[in-house]
Amino acid sequence: MGGTDMSVLYGIGLGPGDPELMTLKADRLIRAAAVLAYPAPDTGESFARRIAAGAIRADAVEIPIVIPMRAKRFPAQAVYDAAAAEIGGHLDGGRDVVVLCEGDPFFYGSFMYLHQRLSTAHRVEIVPGVTSMTAVAGVAGRPLCARNEVLSVIPAPLGEAEIAARLEGSGAAVIMKVGRHLPKVRRVVEAAGLMRRAVYVSHASLPEERHVPLADAPDDAPYFSMILIPGEDPYAA
Amino acid sequence: MGGTDMSVLYGIGLGPGDPELMTLKADRLIRAAAVLAYPAPDTGESFARRIAAGAIRADAVEIPIVIPMRAKRFPAQAVYDAAAAEIGGHLDGGRDVVVLCEGDPFFYGSFMYLHQRLSTAHRVEIVPGVTSMTAVAGVAGRPLCARNEVLSVIPAPLGEAEIAARLEGSGAAVIMKVGRHLPKVRRVVEAAGLMRRAVYVSHASLPEERHVPLADAPDDAPYFSMILIPGEDPYAA
Repeated sequence: MGGTDMSVLYGIGLGPGDPELMTLKADRLIRAAAVLAYPAPDTGESFARRIAAGAIRADAVEIPIVIPMRAKRFPAQAVYDAAAAEIGGHLDGGRDVVVLCEGDPFFYGSFMYLHQRLSTAHRVEIVPGVTSMTAVAGVAGRPLCARNEVLSVIPAPLGEAEIAARLEGSGAAVIMKVGRHLPKVRRVVEAAGLMRRAVYVSHASLPEERHVPLADAPDDAPYFSMILIPGEDPYAA
Repeated sequence: MGGTDMSVLYGIGLGPGDPELMTLKADRLIRAAAVLAYPAPDTGESFARRIAAGAIRADAVEIPIVIPMRAKRFPAQAVYDAAAAEIGGHLDGGRDVVVLCEGDPFFYGSFMYLHQRLSTAHRVEIVPGVTSMTAVAGVAGRPLCARNEVLSVIPAPLGEAEIAARLEGSGAAVIMKVGRHLPKVRRVVEAAGLMRRAVYVSHASLPEERHVPLADAPDDAPYFSMILIPGEDPYAA
């Protein structure tokens, strides 16, 4: 907190992809926003902008935060430094800034790189969003976790031993950021004896969404894919 | 799937409590609903109904699912049997039924007890919602998890050894359903050397929301409270 008392940096979760899974609050704030920032690839469309597109004012100032896909070191600190400076300029000028975030801003989101740079000197408000994780459970038609089950959320880029260790003793698990790591993850899940329960889901909530048993998943999974391992017996009393 | 092709059972996530954190889809479906069901205590107001109240039609048929607070065995199977029979009657009659769910229907939700009883013979659609878990991170102003951190979601009713085991090696953790388990959880978190990072949050997104370091949390925490242990250094590159 501090700085200009009147202006607010909003980190707004947009949900997993279906624009109708935005919250009423996200929709209201985006419709009112005069200045918007969002992550964007160096070629092609911003997924975050696409989700929110129907609510963005034609006269809004837009700040795409372009992260080169082939950047050796992620996150590209210089890109966030520059974006934070531009956003900070608007905040200092008394203008609220809305940052569009896929899913939820604080759940494996890149918003934290702006939060890190701007939250000391500016007011920040987080609008939480639907995570891809629960959207995936809905698509698969399987309760994600229940009663006193432990849920482990495991990023697929981790090593095999680490993934295996975190799966052990979990009631339920979700493996995020699958992409090219699918063959490795499938090996680990098979070794853990969990193939029977494992479901692969890609593009949850989008028209191209797909879910199949992990055994039938493609080796070259898209970035927006996840593996869901629901609890042993979700309906046990 | 099966049964009456025309009618749908909707399990609708309402988010953590602020009615503005409902999704656009939840809002649309509730406004259109002629038959609604929701969990309710045996005395006092249904929290789920309170969240959705502004969108419920005055002429809607309402089915409160009353779970006695002092039920020895939770869930009360007979209560869900009766509710499923009543809801199934509407579905068989060609009427869609909306079930209002706090948070997300498949994230530690009681909706699964209806799903278990009705999903074989009826069409079900899940509308995911914002979980209290990410709402809590927003309230605390702390990224929940980042990059390749493992996140462990741990129900507080578990035993001390089990909670300690799941905290070990987690990048980040959320402890759910804290309530009267707070003193036990605080002992475990202290023994794990994690007190410095631990934040207690109650009633996230509601007017009475509160967040304090776990060290300062009340021993008799309310049911709607949670402990957040963000990753070690959320901003590390």
